[in-house]
Amino acid sequence: MRTSQLLLATIKESPQDAELISHQLMFRAGLIRKLASGLYTWLPMGLRVLRKVERIVREEMDRAGAQELLMPAVQPSELWQETERWDAFGPQLLKITDRHKREYCFGPTHEEVITDLMRSELKSYKELPSCFYQIQMKFRDEIRPRFGVMRAREFLMKDAYSFHIDKSSLENTYQAMYQAYSKIFERLGLNFKVVLADTGAIGGSVSNEFHVLASSGEDAIAFCPASDYAANVETATAMLPNTARADAKETLRIVETPNIRSVEDQAKHMGLATKQIVKTLLVQGKDSPVVALLLRGDDTLNAIKAEKLPEVFSPLTLVDEETVQSVCKCQPGFVGPFELNIPIIADHAVLNLSDFSCGANQNDKHYCGVNWNRDLPLPTNVADLRTVKEGDLSPDGKGSLEICRGIEVGHIFQLGNKYSQAMNATVLDDKGQRIVMEMGCYGIGVSRIVAAAIEQNYDEKGIMWPTPMAPFHINLIPLHYHKSYRVKETTDKLYQELQQHGFEVLMDDRNERPGRMFAESDLIGIPHRLVLSERALDENKIEYKNRRESDNQMIDFDQLIAFLKEKVKV
Amino acid sequence: MRTSQLLLATIKESPQDAELISHQLMFRAGLIRKLASGLYTWLPMGLRVLRKVERIVREEMDRAGAQELLMPAVQPSELWQETERWDAFGPQLLKITDRHKREYCFGPTHEEVITDLMRSELKSYKELPSCFYQIQMKFRDEIRPRFGVMRAREFLMKDAYSFHIDKSSLENTYQAMYQAYSKIFERLGLNFKVVLADTGAIGGSVSNEFHVLASSGEDAIAFCPASDYAANVETATAMLPNTARADAKETLRIVETPNIRSVEDQAKHMGLATKQIVKTLLVQGKDSPVVALLLRGDDTLNAIKAEKLPEVFSPLTLVDEETVQSVCKCQPGFVGPFELNIPIIADHAVLNLSDFSCGANQNDKHYCGVNWNRDLPLPTNVADLRTVKEGDLSPDGKGSLEICRGIEVGHIFQLGNKYSQAMNATVLDDKGQRIVMEMGCYGIGVSRIVAAAIEQNYDEKGIMWPTPMAPFHINLIPLHYHKSYRVKETTDKLYQELQQHGFEVLMDDRNERPGRMFAESDLIGIPHRLVLSERALDENKIEYKNRRESDNQMIDFDQLIAFLKEKVKV
Repeated sequence: MRTSQLLLATIKESPQDAELISHQLMFRAGLIRKLASGLYTWLPMGLRVLRKVERIVREEMDRAGAQELLMPAVQPSELWQETERWDAFGPQLLKITDRHKREYCFGPTHEEVITDLMRSELKSYKELPSCFYQIQMKFRDEIRPRFGVMRAREFLMKDAYSFHIDKSSLENTYQAMYQAYSKIFERLGLNFKVVLADTGAIGGSVSNEFHVLASSGEDAIAFCPASDYAANVETATAMLPNTARADAKETLRIVETPNIRSVEDQAKHMGLATKQIVKTLLVQGKDSPVVALLLRGDDTLNAIKAEKLPEVFSPLTLVDEETVQSVCKCQPGFVGPFELNIPIIADHAVLNLSDFSCGANQNDKHYCGVNWNRDLPLPTNVADLRTVKEGDLSPDGKGSLEICRGIEVGHIFQLGNKYSQAMNATVLDDKGQRIVMEMGCYGIGVSRIVAAAIEQNYDEKGIMWPTPMAPFHINLIPLHYHKSYRVKETTDKLYQELQQHGFEVLMDDRNERPGRMFAESDLIGIPHRLVLSERALDENKIEYKNRRESDNQMIDFDQLIAFLKEKVKV
Repeated sequence: MRTSQLLLATIKESPQDAELISHQLMFRAGLIRKLASGLYTWLPMGLRVLRKVERIVREEMDRAGAQELLMPAVQPSELWQETERWDAFGPQLLKITDRHKREYCFGPTHEEVITDLMRSELKSYKELPSCFYQIQMKFRDEIRPRFGVMRAREFLMKDAYSFHIDKSSLENTYQAMYQAYSKIFERLGLNFKVVLADTGAIGGSVSNEFHVLASSGEDAIAFCPASDYAANVETATAMLPNTARADAKETLRIVETPNIRSVEDQAKHMGLATKQIVKTLLVQGKDSPVVALLLRGDDTLNAIKAEKLPEVFSPLTLVDEETVQSVCKCQPGFVGPFELNIPIIADHAVLNLSDFSCGANQNDKHYCGVNWNRDLPLPTNVADLRTVKEGDLSPDGKGSLEICRGIEVGHIFQLGNKYSQAMNATVLDDKGQRIVMEMGCYGIGVSRIVAAAIEQNYDEKGIMWPTPMAPFHINLIPLHYHKSYRVKETTDKLYQELQQHGFEVLMDDRNERPGRMFAESDLIGIPHRLVLSERALDENKIEYKNRRESDNQMIDFDQLIAFLKEKVKV
């Protein structure tokens, strides 16, 4: 394409509300414009990138045997009532009332619609397994949309759904999708990690997330460099050191701790490490009003793990000061496990402590030298309550964990029969029995991938696209195109030739300063740049520069195509 | 693709609500399913067709120099208030309120959004002309959605918008779009007509519609077989016969016409042709409360023409009986142009009458032998009020008009400055003056094309796709694939080979009766069928059948590829 024919909407200044570098660069490089909160227009340059991602996703889904279909964006409320998600989904569900006062939503996901469709279309085990996908704009009415297309309200998603006669078939398709997703992110040229994940609001049992790694990522990922263990810290576990609890050495004593409420102050005051302290958190329970959670002082409570416990109310809610007073007869900060008449759940790590400190359930007082079995009964309700930390032992025992940050761009679930049961989606098995189908679902945030790729690939000059996602492979920049007949003639011929070889070329035919053309090329992030000048032509050469390298090279004109084929690999 | 891997959702019975043949066949061939009123899921087979249409539209828009972008489906109300369409668009506009109580709509069209975008992005005449398009789901909240995807609420549309420094540039791009649209419908293999059209609610001056011709079409089209004149009857004009008004022969007299109110009864009663009668219609006026429209008895009032007159209230509204009584002192049916103290507008044809009949403004009485200038002044306010009829003279004088029916699938408009003026979308011209841009807009109903193509291409067995739109080019049907090793081996090899030559092949690997496989192939409408059997293999032949022909042919295996290349032209 000729630059003069393209809406090249580059801009010097970032928008004020752009916190993320990808948001800034997508705006500055002219990929997107904001229409309203969380609503973005994809300008021609941005849409080229989006379509490339879409194409790779489609090709790999097709290759994996999934069939593309297209469901309406607007969905009737009745189906969401069948699964009880009409209310449960919360205010992110954009509800719509039509002229006849019927209720609909702008679909944020399509489990209900596909399950409704397939309970009619699929009749026999012979038609299973079947997997269907679509690529479509979804809507989630985020309370505070931020970060550009990273967390927009209207966003492009690939959602797939599979149907099975049993769990083993579901597991097979799940593995096929796992492989297809890995292939997609490899083909896109992104550095990514597959991690174990929580199933959250979608439900189901097994679940993996695909993360593009970037220091700005919203999610923390725990992984073991020595093995393939990787999990979202929301759900990551660690192995406890296999050491016996030390014998008690100290006597139990009560210590005056005026106004000392935090673990850090308590440790300092007592000359202890924070890991010698047991902290007691009071949270709302499901059956009893209050439940106590015991954690080591240096550990952090993992809300998602806690919420999964049958005793704990979800969403996790710390009780208020008044409740603390009435249960423990003291202010928050001095709460401890002594003489508590409420259910107690202890993190595994807490059981290994001896001579530890904890609150005394009296204002301005803590215990020291506390030992299990001697001063307090060893807790019987024990669970994994903590968030893993760098240096923890990997749960597979193969090394210690490190933490990195990622951007979730894909999520696959073994749903089981959550939706098929609620909506009575059955088929006949080989004995003529009616069987509720097993289901899987598989999502990719297509528009989010574009932003995530930038978070992983930029420098101070702008975006550095991996070639498979780049809006153009090559930016062909002639110097004095409008002045030198030789430059114009050679450029036009080369532009044709490059396209005939399958390269996608942006040819800068504008009458602009070279400095501006180079800067725009770097900002937009076109991976390969060719500069054609009178001087180089005298030597029958052309200048090549890779966006990721600082040096140029002069290439012989007659070797150019071979050279580019090696570099660009279209 | 192997049939066993595809959701082949063919069905024997049509849905009860399907009136149109395309709706019935799309359902029966497994192209679509209804989710809710006016909301359809495109099943894999249907989506393949939709994507083919989409691809051809995209290729021709790109070729014409339009740039693809993608605007949000959800649009803020503020922009629609700027153009005063938030209320004016009526209940077809699906309004949405988000969690913060802000108002949006699900875009039925994007004039406001693109004009808002381009008033920021386009700054100078140097960036003009520019043309942008998108392919996207739109929503119109039809009061009674019918006819399947022909008039769905959520539908796929290609909408394009162009921006210009002056009208002459707009006309150039309009012509380019006219050509691109013609190319699109040619490439799709459809029989279509470009017609002059009314600009309706979108506004602007010049406008053309693209119609797929089909006897079930909602629109009537007047065209001249001897020239290129064609127009929607909403707007079509005819030339008046160039004959002088005959001299008066009769005397004016009043006739008793008890209970005779219709033109037909009046003609019969008086022994006149209906074309010797002047009918007088009273409608609401803009400045005066009532306006009289005079038409020849055999002509029909064209509401759209009437609404464009400055004297007539829009939408056209006949006045009620009470108003007729108070203005004419008689009941409807006896109204005439004598002594009427309201504005009178006469159709051209009325002026040519002599010795005609009309109402007498007295109950149960009509005049006969009426003559202009003698009994009544010749009307001075004359307009084209009639709907053209088969046999009328073409306005270009090149023959007489015929009427056919069409389905509107494309509509292009020279908008002028309707939106750019209202939204102050300006650029600087070459003198540094701020100029309001001229705009064009260009729509194609992508999903509607699929239904329209079927209305034009079907028989009693099912759909007959034009090859460029067909979900597959070839249906390869082996007989005894599961029994005969030779059939299986040859089929598998041929299936591979056909695909390598670029043919899109559906290979029926199911264990089905041949009759059912043939019937499904005909219903789905795959244009080329190959049947591979033991018997034919013995003679090194394969059976070919074209969906549009009744006879089979036996083709030599070694000539098959060349034969198909000629037939299919991929």
